[in-house]
Amino acid sequence: MIGLSMNQKLWVPWMRRSIQLALLAEGMTSPNPVVGAVVLDSTGKLVGEGFHTGSGNAHAEIEALNQAGGKANEGTIVVTLEPCCHHGLTPPCTEALIKAGLKRVVIGMVDPDPRVSGNGISRLRDSGLEVIEGVLKEECEFINREFVFRIRNGRPWGILKWAMSLDGRIGLPNGSSKWITDKTARDAVHKIRSKCDAVIVGGGTLRADDPHLTSRGKSNPEPLRVVFSRSLDLPKSANLWDTKIAKTIIAYGPEGNEDFFSDFKDGPERLLLNSNDPSELLTSLAGKGCNKVLWECGPLLATSAIDSNCVQELIVFVAPKLLGGKSAMCPLGSFGFESINSTYNLQHSFLEQKGTDLCWRLAF
Amino acid sequence: MIGLSMNQKLWVPWMRRSIQLALLAEGMTSPNPVVGAVVLDSTGKLVGEGFHTGSGNAHAEIEALNQAGGKANEGTIVVTLEPCCHHGLTPPCTEALIKAGLKRVVIGMVDPDPRVSGNGISRLRDSGLEVIEGVLKEECEFINREFVFRIRNGRPWGILKWAMSLDGRIGLPNGSSKWITDKTARDAVHKIRSKCDAVIVGGGTLRADDPHLTSRGKSNPEPLRVVFSRSLDLPKSANLWDTKIAKTIIAYGPEGNEDFFSDFKDGPERLLLNSNDPSELLTSLAGKGCNKVLWECGPLLATSAIDSNCVQELIVFVAPKLLGGKSAMCPLGSFGFESINSTYNLQHSFLEQKGTDLCWRLAF
Repeated sequence: MIGLSMNQKLWVPWMRRSIQLALLAEGMTSPNPVVGAVVLDSTGKLVGEGFHTGSGNAHAEIEALNQAGGKANEGTIVVTLEPCCHHGLTPPCTEALIKAGLKRVVIGMVDPDPRVSGNGISRLRDSGLEVIEGVLKEECEFINREFVFRIRNGRPWGILKWAMSLDGRIGLPNGSSKWITDKTARDAVHKIRSKCDAVIVGGGTLRADDPHLTSRGKSNPEPLRVVFSRSLDLPKSANLWDTKIAKTIIAYGPEGNEDFFSDFKDGPERLLLNSNDPSELLTSLAGKGCNKVLWECGPLLATSAIDSNCVQELIVFVAPKLLGGKSAMCPLGSFGFESINSTYNLQHSFLEQKGTDLCWRLAF
Repeated sequence: MIGLSMNQKLWVPWMRRSIQLALLAEGMTSPNPVVGAVVLDSTGKLVGEGFHTGSGNAHAEIEALNQAGGKANEGTIVVTLEPCCHHGLTPPCTEALIKAGLKRVVIGMVDPDPRVSGNGISRLRDSGLEVIEGVLKEECEFINREFVFRIRNGRPWGILKWAMSLDGRIGLPNGSSKWITDKTARDAVHKIRSKCDAVIVGGGTLRADDPHLTSRGKSNPEPLRVVFSRSLDLPKSANLWDTKIAKTIIAYGPEGNEDFFSDFKDGPERLLLNSNDPSELLTSLAGKGCNKVLWECGPLLATSAIDSNCVQELIVFVAPKLLGGKSAMCPLGSFGFESINSTYNLQHSFLEQKGTDLCWRLAF
């Protein structure tokens, strides 16, 4: 709030409420951002609230205006994101705001979508409405960091998650890893999945663990499940091939042996890529509407994803166990670092205890 | 405090103060325990406080009685540990208490030393003093867990410490490890050392890091520094061989090549052991007055120390860095576990952030 003018500060409490509203649909709106809005009448009384519930549904502004009805006249709308001015799946919000007779629009952040990107604000000002920008801008950008990242970089925000013992092992030398963390931590992983648009594993994880990769019903629809395999050396039978609960994509590079599909039953979608570069996979997933993906893969793919800048955030669960093991079962492979000063250095973001385990969240 | 009688509860606040006093000398009193005492006059007014400052110095009771002088007559002493009744380096405290004319002695815990172990209490009761036992017993036992452990097991309490990256590495494949954690964490390690009687490393750590292993002046005298080497394949020149700042012991098993000492300058003490079992080293260190030792060793010795029950507590520093590396530089070697259910499972004890790093303390 440092650096805000008096005129901006006035609207901070209402912007906080709009942010709360926006977050009610966290993980549900991709490829759209989360957006929240409140409408106040001409005397400053709350007369409408709304948030965007998902692609194709009404925008937050429309939800709030519908609640307010005629009371919006001469009133104010406080909205986390610049109102759109283009015809997408729904009509432009700017026109609805003008039609409702609002006198003032308070905005958290400019929409980075090139179709809007200041044009919405211009349209409102040109129509005689007062527009106040930049109220809790950082907070509004933070709740949409994945959307903003995708718009700017053309690929989704990547989160890498692993669970390890106190001595940094993700499994015993014999491959056994069930369960390093306890149920509270594993439930937390289901919650994290529910906020993501896709969950990605490699062929190795599929062969070793035969995972379900669902949120166990915590989100509907379930996130997209993606197997990223160079070789297509995959089992004929796997939990991921059952797409009744959730969709599955089998992504593979040019070396993939497509014989695998010869007597393969229907269900999973096939995605041939031009390379084994994780960023090419993510570009494809952005095209499918993913703002945020979760990497739940083994050391090889995780290392490759980090090295190709496909991981923006790390979530590490640490269990109070000692596994030991000569043949390393470590979370990551080699980056080729020669000096500690050149290693990846992350920023602390959030730390909490999940049952007996620690959950540490960090940003790259 | 659950289960305390009214008569015991009355003394809880004064016992808390005695515990505070005891802890003022934490890490300074070995092989003795930490002990604190307060003396109240016949009206219940505080007239004396004391704590044991180190082996050979006056016991806490005597310090408190000296402050109280004649005001102790008909008064009460509240002391964390049962007063001694034998001639050690100082005369028995029981006699001083009786002579001071006290009417009541309130005790936290019974002294596990077989020379006392209830005999002090009997001596006081036989002399007509009221004795109230078991006030904050668990707390009093906790602050002396290392002393109690040494008396019961014949070897010091062991703490194992390591510092690792988020991906569980204690160094790069090329051996580089300076510095994984930042200065705040490294200062915290010096503080931990200052509370220990000895710091132990193996030959590998000595060769790789040439450490000082001091508390950087945080304790005086500095803790004893111990190199535990099977082979005596050690460098002729090392920071540990300079014993002006702190004493050093070179401990070695039957396979040690004593030629190493042929043209070795004076300074470090030599300690030949009958085996390479870490518990034999610890038994020797108990004989030298150590209640608490800190293992700061590499994977091989750490694994061996854990497997031989020479580690009661673990302190893990986790830095927000990713090191990677194919050739594992992991904190521990192999325990030979076949199932996650059979791995070591530790109890959370304390978690805090030290600068950008985490410090997690756990008990076996």
